[in-house]
Amino acid sequence: MDYSKWLKNRELEYKNGVLHIAGMNTIELSEKYGTPVYIVNENLIRIRYRKLKETLDSEYENNAIHYAVKANSNLSVLKILKSEGASFDCSSVGEIYTCFKAGIKPKSIFYTGNMFTNQDFKFAVENDILINLDSISQINRLVKVYDDLGKEKKTISFRINPEFGAGHHAHTITAGKYIKFGILGHQVIEAYSKAKQLGFNKFGIHMHIGSGVLDAHDFEKATEKLLSIAINLTDTLDMKLEFIDFGGGIGIPYRPEEDDFNLELYKNIVLKKFVDITEREVFGKPILKIEPGRYISAEASIILTQINTIKDNGFKLFAGVDAGFHTLVRPTMYSAYHHIIPCETKQGVQSLKYDIAGPICESGDILGKEREFPELKEEDFLAVLDAGAYGYVMSSSYNSRPRPAEILINNGQPYLIRESEKFDDMLSHQIIPEHLK
Amino acid sequence: MDYSKWLKNRELEYKNGVLHIAGMNTIELSEKYGTPVYIVNENLIRIRYRKLKETLDSEYENNAIHYAVKANSNLSVLKILKSEGASFDCSSVGEIYTCFKAGIKPKSIFYTGNMFTNQDFKFAVENDILINLDSISQINRLVKVYDDLGKEKKTISFRINPEFGAGHHAHTITAGKYIKFGILGHQVIEAYSKAKQLGFNKFGIHMHIGSGVLDAHDFEKATEKLLSIAINLTDTLDMKLEFIDFGGGIGIPYRPEEDDFNLELYKNIVLKKFVDITEREVFGKPILKIEPGRYISAEASIILTQINTIKDNGFKLFAGVDAGFHTLVRPTMYSAYHHIIPCETKQGVQSLKYDIAGPICESGDILGKEREFPELKEEDFLAVLDAGAYGYVMSSSYNSRPRPAEILINNGQPYLIRESEKFDDMLSHQIIPEHLK
Repeated sequence: MDYSKWLKNRELEYKNGVLHIAGMNTIELSEKYGTPVYIVNENLIRIRYRKLKETLDSEYENNAIHYAVKANSNLSVLKILKSEGASFDCSSVGEIYTCFKAGIKPKSIFYTGNMFTNQDFKFAVENDILINLDSISQINRLVKVYDDLGKEKKTISFRINPEFGAGHHAHTITAGKYIKFGILGHQVIEAYSKAKQLGFNKFGIHMHIGSGVLDAHDFEKATEKLLSIAINLTDTLDMKLEFIDFGGGIGIPYRPEEDDFNLELYKNIVLKKFVDITEREVFGKPILKIEPGRYISAEASIILTQINTIKDNGFKLFAGVDAGFHTLVRPTMYSAYHHIIPCETKQGVQSLKYDIAGPICESGDILGKEREFPELKEEDFLAVLDAGAYGYVMSSSYNSRPRPAEILINNGQPYLIRESEKFDDMLSHQIIPEHLK
Repeated sequence: MDYSKWLKNRELEYKNGVLHIAGMNTIELSEKYGTPVYIVNENLIRIRYRKLKETLDSEYENNAIHYAVKANSNLSVLKILKSEGASFDCSSVGEIYTCFKAGIKPKSIFYTGNMFTNQDFKFAVENDILINLDSISQINRLVKVYDDLGKEKKTISFRINPEFGAGHHAHTITAGKYIKFGILGHQVIEAYSKAKQLGFNKFGIHMHIGSGVLDAHDFEKATEKLLSIAINLTDTLDMKLEFIDFGGGIGIPYRPEEDDFNLELYKNIVLKKFVDITEREVFGKPILKIEPGRYISAEASIILTQINTIKDNGFKLFAGVDAGFHTLVRPTMYSAYHHIIPCETKQGVQSLKYDIAGPICESGDILGKEREFPELKEEDFLAVLDAGAYGYVMSSSYNSRPRPAEILINNGQPYLIRESEKFDDMLSHQIIPEHLK
């Protein structure tokens, strides 16, 4: 893609040589709030959600977009999406709790856990949350929870592992025979028969093939498999499906040379095939669900960070910054690429290659390798792009470094939506026993 | 090593079929405190520290063991080591702050940062903390901080990158030409000349080759290089060294088939060579420093976790547990091995191979691959061993899963030394802007 278009797509642009996000000066933001800091662009979250919603609406009206809360569970991000009419996909009780705090109602939440505990089930059943089971063995425990609470069993769903997985890293490919998620095709009839027999009377079906898929073709085989499983299921057990959920996984172009995920192709590969089946079979009109996280939130955020140390050891140039893998773990954990750009352009200086290194005591704490910049100086600011998904939510306080603040930009105004941690926060739950005082 | 000896070395043993740590029943601990939970054995921390201290004392009296706070910065762990007379190695201002809260005095602290900010320097200078610089460019900024604060410059040290690195993973090998840490040999004279010229009058020298080194031979070349650099430095600039710090890196046998790090060999390779030089050269008697973290704290802790889901998909068996890479990131981030054992032995059941899978929404959330156990059942408890270093300190609340509690065992009594996080803790720093309320 053309680079300036790629930037503009993120509402990033240089004005008088200074990088602006959603019209706001990144150097002023860095100086006002300190670095490292996450900057979240409200407008872009809305734009991405609406784009997907229009894509679905154009093919099939009875649809729901469940935003994957795991990607970015900041209360303000959830509130923005709630105001857009989104539904929500939660992977834990903590995420459901967070949704409740954002004013989201139980009926908008779909709970796809992995390795559910009995306490997880109890919380979900008490709060009327729709559950998506991950294993056949879990259903007996779930039924016991319903019975113990005297609650009526209604809808249940299983996560199908369609074997054809995809994603940006082995860790995030979530389908395949040797992958921990879901039940395989050959277990589906057993699972739903058991559910029926145990008293559930409404059913859904779900898959999720992975995270960070940039080629819509990667959805093809899994979609066909899920639909054929769904047809076989409804035929064999004479049941209707309330919904079919195609999961998340839609990626974004982290590199300027990559193209956007092709939503028109996705329409043809996933949506139209689903619509065909609902027209051809005695299938009713199940809700079409998808669960995007990264697509909606990733491009909306950047991390601003300041260079403190330029190091030239004769073999390599390093620009040392105050963000590290405690702030953003993706480059270290997945060797993931995040584009990094200067907050100020420079004229008439040579271009040099740098490793952008964080302050963590590990060699793996490199945010970007061999990146070319007009010569960098100590105290310059940099922006790490596309940090809005799997960014703050995966942060840690490793090396006793407090987690950063988050700033929301809306309508030309910045709002502090999360204060940075203080040192005392890292100590606040500790209790020193008498004999060590 | 013999397996029962390997376990006993960690004060772990089965009594009446139940795993005990430091004499305490792990099933009772799991039920009392809930899972996942970190259990820390105070006595083993003391044993490991004393063993190292004896090793150093036997060769050279003027020594100091600086415990690497980054490995485990729990206040109780720091207090235990303080009571043993340890010194401390800090990698950040947050770690120094934590030491202060544990009652540790500035003079016991050595501050080896990476990518220091001016704020870092200000905190260290104000608090009379000995600083170990990581780059030549940093010294001008540091001097400005001294001057601004009107403080007298005394001792300074540089971290030397001896190029010969080692460690358990590429991320933790911290020496080499293309590694971000320290200054290379050819820069040493420039660095110390500059320091002298800028008014520092006492000097130390430091290296750190990596983390998790199990073969003492890996220290050989780096030690020789550091000592030859030190000799050249003192000869060329006519300066005495107050201390020589050989860094950390001493590993532990995570696998039962591995042998302990050979301290006798380490004596010969590192300590005796240092002593030889102090005897031969006009070298004075600099303090011999080392900075172990993992060696002291790793084996002292286990994580107790409960199985909630047994899944057999026809291709693979999974035991799903409530600990995951939010609790302990090492298996996912470094493919690190942690031995996992049942809290209860079983007789007369078949042995099967399991992947021990956490609840995080990524396929990479596997704590142990293809591990053989007597057939496991839902609700069984497991112990993940050697979790006391780079365990809790690297934990996150990914998937909105609160971080676990830590329990200290001392003298047959358990003490809650860190409460588990609550859901509200994950939300406590958030502020919802007016327009989203």
